[in-house]
Amino acid sequence: MGFYLLFLVVSLKKIEMNNRSFFLKTIAPVGSLSLIDVDGFATESKSLSKEKVSVWSKPKIIFFDVNETLLDLEPLKKSVVAKLGGNKELGTLWFTTMLQYSLVVTVSSQYFDFGRIGAATLMMVAKNNEIELSEDEAKEAVEPMLSLKPHSEVKEALALLKKAGYLLVSFSNSSNKAVKVQLDHAGITSFFDQILSVEDYGKYKPHLEVYHWAARKMNVENSDCMLVAAHGWDVGGAKWAGWQTVFITRPGQQLFPLAITPDIIENDLLKFAVKILKSS
Amino acid sequence: MGFYLLFLVVSLKKIEMNNRSFFLKTIAPVGSLSLIDVDGFATESKSLSKEKVSVWSKPKIIFFDVNETLLDLEPLKKSVVAKLGGNKELGTLWFTTMLQYSLVVTVSSQYFDFGRIGAATLMMVAKNNEIELSEDEAKEAVEPMLSLKPHSEVKEALALLKKAGYLLVSFSNSSNKAVKVQLDHAGITSFFDQILSVEDYGKYKPHLEVYHWAARKMNVENSDCMLVAAHGWDVGGAKWAGWQTVFITRPGQQLFPLAITPDIIENDLLKFAVKILKSS
Repeated sequence: MGFYLLFLVVSLKKIEMNNRSFFLKTIAPVGSLSLIDVDGFATESKSLSKEKVSVWSKPKIIFFDVNETLLDLEPLKKSVVAKLGGNKELGTLWFTTMLQYSLVVTVSSQYFDFGRIGAATLMMVAKNNEIELSEDEAKEAVEPMLSLKPHSEVKEALALLKKAGYLLVSFSNSSNKAVKVQLDHAGITSFFDQILSVEDYGKYKPHLEVYHWAARKMNVENSDCMLVAAHGWDVGGAKWAGWQTVFITRPGQQLFPLAITPDIIENDLLKFAVKILKSS
Repeated sequence: MGFYLLFLVVSLKKIEMNNRSFFLKTIAPVGSLSLIDVDGFATESKSLSKEKVSVWSKPKIIFFDVNETLLDLEPLKKSVVAKLGGNKELGTLWFTTMLQYSLVVTVSSQYFDFGRIGAATLMMVAKNNEIELSEDEAKEAVEPMLSLKPHSEVKEALALLKKAGYLLVSFSNSSNKAVKVQLDHAGITSFFDQILSVEDYGKYKPHLEVYHWAARKMNVENSDCMLVAAHGWDVGGAKWAGWQTVFITRPGQQLFPLAITPDIIENDLLKFAVKILKSS
């Protein structure tokens, strides 16, 4: 036993700070001591590494990011790209600039509606490319954000999770008003037990306090929460806030290499739902 | 007099929250009451709006952002674009993503070196474009950041301000180590009375607290500080923090439409130096 414990202590060091919470969590439910054998670190470390994305505990609440994660942003991107002279990369640049400025206002202790930040940053990107957009034109270009369709597998996945008794909460940077229109238009409102917008707290995701606010709002601990999102910054922030995280690998989205690895990674929501239901 | 005061009160409302600090400041030095005439709001409002970018008070310290504001980023952008298959827009997307993630870590109560965030986000942008970069390759691509040249007018402008007795401080998101190498290589270290990096506070600009920390560090009030920067988010954040701001309109940079208008806008540093010296 002492021999095993020695490996356990040394391996904790090997896994480093980033994955400590994961490791500590594995010990109880999976019985990681049994993974350790006399072949030493290599085997043990490899086993853990293989298991890394599949060890999680059943959450009390599953939170879902909305834009990109549940809803397909393609029509919005098309509309914006059309205003930017048809250059696809400029559409991605706009979306990134919008996210950057949502955090610029957050760290400046300011708050503006997400749609307004979207229009303002679209005007900036346009101007940098010698395209003058009025505020009204910019607002019009981002309007398709309100009428996006869900990705093809989303309804089936949400229905499965709901049927299994999971509490589902949508948790978005969109304003209260916008997210209600979005979910209604997508026909998925009824799946959610609660619809949360960061607007009520006044700071944008991934501010640490916003995740903690959402957990308090739902009367659970941070460790009872699981966020499902398609953005590296969102799963990164939620994990730093003490939540479990699920990354859905939508095209054009990457994990942030300096963040903690998510607990689960799947390329669509249905695969995630099936996985979590199998293990429940 | 009562008549003028009525206009004064109503016009404060018209100018809205965003520009209140500007307006309050104008009253004393410029004597804005004299701007108000019986033609009513239109004239008064127009006069103020015309004056908006030229009313400021002499600062005790002038702070300078470094990357883009003093140093020409072109060689860095070229190096990064070369790794991204030659697509110029992807270079801009990378820089914006780096800034976004500097704030992602800030709002998550984390801190990583700016160069490391640069390399990590370059790997993300590359992967989204089906280009696999190792961490070493990404680090190599962002290395030109350490050996940038100053924009052509920078030395003359700094020399003028220094000769006139202004206290000059560089204030950068680059790490202490990096910014010292940068300023040395550019041959402009000797102009600065102090070299500040956000690294010492552990949050990236434009976090409100970082500007307040810099003012405290220099033993002055926020109202004694003036920031010169070429990024809309930097002058926006500094203004919200209670500083005076100067926007240098480098190519590819725009003001954030939802921020407070800077006190001075010029298209190069020399023009700013001449303007401030004329009025001193």
